[in-house]
Amino acid sequence: MRARYSQCAVATFLILIWAVGGCGSAKPLLISDGSLDAIRLPAPRTTGGKPLMEALGDRQSSRDFSPASLSEQVLSDLLWAAFGINRPDSGKRTAPSALNWQETDIYVFTHQGAYLYDASENALLPIAAGDHRSATGSALQPYVKKAPVNLVYVVDSARSGIVGRVMSTEDRDMFSDAAVGFISQNVYLYCASEGLSTVVRGMVDRESLTTLLSLRPEQRIILAQSVGYPAE
Amino acid sequence: MRARYSQCAVATFLILIWAVGGCGSAKPLLISDGSLDAIRLPAPRTTGGKPLMEALGDRQSSRDFSPASLSEQVLSDLLWAAFGINRPDSGKRTAPSALNWQETDIYVFTHQGAYLYDASENALLPIAAGDHRSATGSALQPYVKKAPVNLVYVVDSARSGIVGRVMSTEDRDMFSDAAVGFISQNVYLYCASEGLSTVVRGMVDRESLTTLLSLRPEQRIILAQSVGYPAE
Repeated sequence: MRARYSQCAVATFLILIWAVGGCGSAKPLLISDGSLDAIRLPAPRTTGGKPLMEALGDRQSSRDFSPASLSEQVLSDLLWAAFGINRPDSGKRTAPSALNWQETDIYVFTHQGAYLYDASENALLPIAAGDHRSATGSALQPYVKKAPVNLVYVVDSARSGIVGRVMSTEDRDMFSDAAVGFISQNVYLYCASEGLSTVVRGMVDRESLTTLLSLRPEQRIILAQSVGYPAE
Repeated sequence: MRARYSQCAVATFLILIWAVGGCGSAKPLLISDGSLDAIRLPAPRTTGGKPLMEALGDRQSSRDFSPASLSEQVLSDLLWAAFGINRPDSGKRTAPSALNWQETDIYVFTHQGAYLYDASENALLPIAAGDHRSATGSALQPYVKKAPVNLVYVVDSARSGIVGRVMSTEDRDMFSDAAVGFISQNVYLYCASEGLSTVVRGMVDRESLTTLLSLRPEQRIILAQSVGYPAE
């Protein structure tokens, strides 16, 4: 499912993403250096899994990871569960957002690089080559480098409500913080269903990540979440 | 499952709740006026439900409610899914919280009154008699009064982290806002699984509710969520 794109093809692909993005989906500030491949994920499997109440019963945090990679199929399923499009007609998602702002972006960190999940294209867009997983946590969290995937949730107030008489900045930010919680819980339940380990984390190297991901002042890093198979 | 308690019995029950609460569970500021019954819920059914991926596929917001009540069994299942105890040995819950603060309380509004969900006792503790459902929304949300149940999510910084060198007030509040999102998403998925309508809402009459629920300055109302059967 992986294809190496020429610089021109990447540009075309990105223009296409911008053109068809719509529905409040991710509007990436793409800064690929051309050394990282975009990944077109296989179609997510949107059936199956544990019965919901059993997934809730098994939900837990674990910091115990095997270094084994997740397949692109599992990554596709995971990201669809997290914040995929579950109603293609409207572009609406598996998690809610205030007034359907869809202001959360999921950055995906693997040993290869940092990517931006594009739900409408079901693709990982290249952001930065190299293994930057440790920047998604702190020195007190050695498991972060071991987990094959770390997700970083970033909200973008350029896509959310206009602050003013009706809504304060505090309220808007509160809604966006909660929006990340909705998504992260989906990841928890997917992991509980599939026997994966996961833990959501507030200790994130925000300064390094802001630079690495070239985040704009309107973008805020809320939480990170490590995902992988449990250690043997 | 409902029993009318004498004032003395209510006092004993509440002392018991305080004594055995532990595990960071709700520490209610109880202000029952004696005219509202406590409700001991039936044990939640912690198996079954739609396969997770199908529940995610069906997750959506709906403002379309029948006035039909939820049974106490459904209410028990719903609240367990939301933020029940899924690991009795440790008192840990179906949704995560930073450092296991468990700082979120769920207030349950029905036509009879406002209650506090006590996960460890699987009970609804009486807070205020009467139909206060409309205060959980705004005049622009007439469906709020029609939905048989409205949940109000309140975080209590008296149970969360000490602000200081390691954690700012902003970070602590961001984690607590997200904590509500985890719980609300569980409610969404339970409703998707059981064919119930639900919508999470940020427009809440915070002033009225703060007075009604006698919230302390450390408590913040984050979101509300209406739940019921879809209109015919």
